[in-house]
Amino acid sequence: MNKGLLVVISGPSGAGKGTIYGKVIEQTGMKRSVSVTTRKPRPGEVEGVNYYFRTEEQYQQMIASGEFLETAAVYNNFYGTPKAPVFSNLESGYDVLFEVDVHGAKSIKSKYPEAVTIFLMTPDFDTLEARLKSRGTESASALKMRLDSARNELAKYEMFDYIVFNDTVEQATAEVISIIEAEKHKVKNNVAKINALLAQKR
Amino acid sequence: MNKGLLVVISGPSGAGKGTIYGKVIEQTGMKRSVSVTTRKPRPGEVEGVNYYFRTEEQYQQMIASGEFLETAAVYNNFYGTPKAPVFSNLESGYDVLFEVDVHGAKSIKSKYPEAVTIFLMTPDFDTLEARLKSRGTESASALKMRLDSARNELAKYEMFDYIVFNDTVEQATAEVISIIEAEKHKVKNNVAKINALLAQKR
Repeated sequence: MNKGLLVVISGPSGAGKGTIYGKVIEQTGMKRSVSVTTRKPRPGEVEGVNYYFRTEEQYQQMIASGEFLETAAVYNNFYGTPKAPVFSNLESGYDVLFEVDVHGAKSIKSKYPEAVTIFLMTPDFDTLEARLKSRGTESASALKMRLDSARNELAKYEMFDYIVFNDTVEQATAEVISIIEAEKHKVKNNVAKINALLAQKR
Repeated sequence: MNKGLLVVISGPSGAGKGTIYGKVIEQTGMKRSVSVTTRKPRPGEVEGVNYYFRTEEQYQQMIASGEFLETAAVYNNFYGTPKAPVFSNLESGYDVLFEVDVHGAKSIKSKYPEAVTIFLMTPDFDTLEARLKSRGTESASALKMRLDSARNELAKYEMFDYIVFNDTVEQATAEVISIIEAEKHKVKNNVAKINALLAQKR
């Protein structure tokens, strides 16, 4: 049996990572990665389904023992991806999909070089600006900051394997799914199967 | 504008290369590569469409001046893929699809390492044997020879980028098209486009 694929959707804020991530999960049945967090559970959230809830002390201990593929602080809370459940899924042949920022993608790739990294981008910067504005929650200076970081993130394109321009949700979802499909047909991801075929007696 | 892709469908005799090649051309509108041959034109065949027809002397001269991506002798005639029209299509942004045997795929890859090489294989050797038998034209010894070379060819899987198992024409065609789609989204195939985006004034 072939090992599962670890696929990362990343890109600037406003490119539509969350939407495409949701659609790809829906259409492929890939496993979501469940994050560890130090924030308190909200009503209805289930341990191990929405998050693994940990104290800050436990979290720091997990960092110290190298248990994360990536970790980030957001408004005084920590969020991170634990290695163990991801690796266990991959070993069992399940593909796992991630949606993380560019910083997180870099961290995952450095700890698991076989990760397939996809940079999701709007067709151009004007579209990105329009999408960020349509959220209506950003001040002019926050908007400018987001556009500047999008530019800096795109400039780091070389650390990604693929780039998808999110023109429409349907098109971008289909392109991400093609990438995953193609990766499953890489020879290096089929060595076990090929050797099994070659070993069949004539 | 991004450069076109050179995509090679290869694999053992009986795997269904010709059928899948035709379907992919039909569904994607990719350019066919037109071969040079020393055999005489058949009625209705058009120079530059079906083949470039050349004398054996002209052909040998083309070999000598390194004009081929691959060349092979079949029943006293030569068949080869000339570089010039292929490279001109690629430079103009057109994708070009090839259907060649494993020997030809190796030659193309060595002369154009960016080529995307796909090994087309039946789901197993029993299926390959059944398909070869169903042609009904092979002697027992020719059949054994083909099966042995299929095994030797599969054993060289490492020179290929992708492997597709041809279970049904529809599934194998869709998988080849996904591979081509994914390759178009490789970051390395989008550097021109990304740099154009980054160069837009803010």
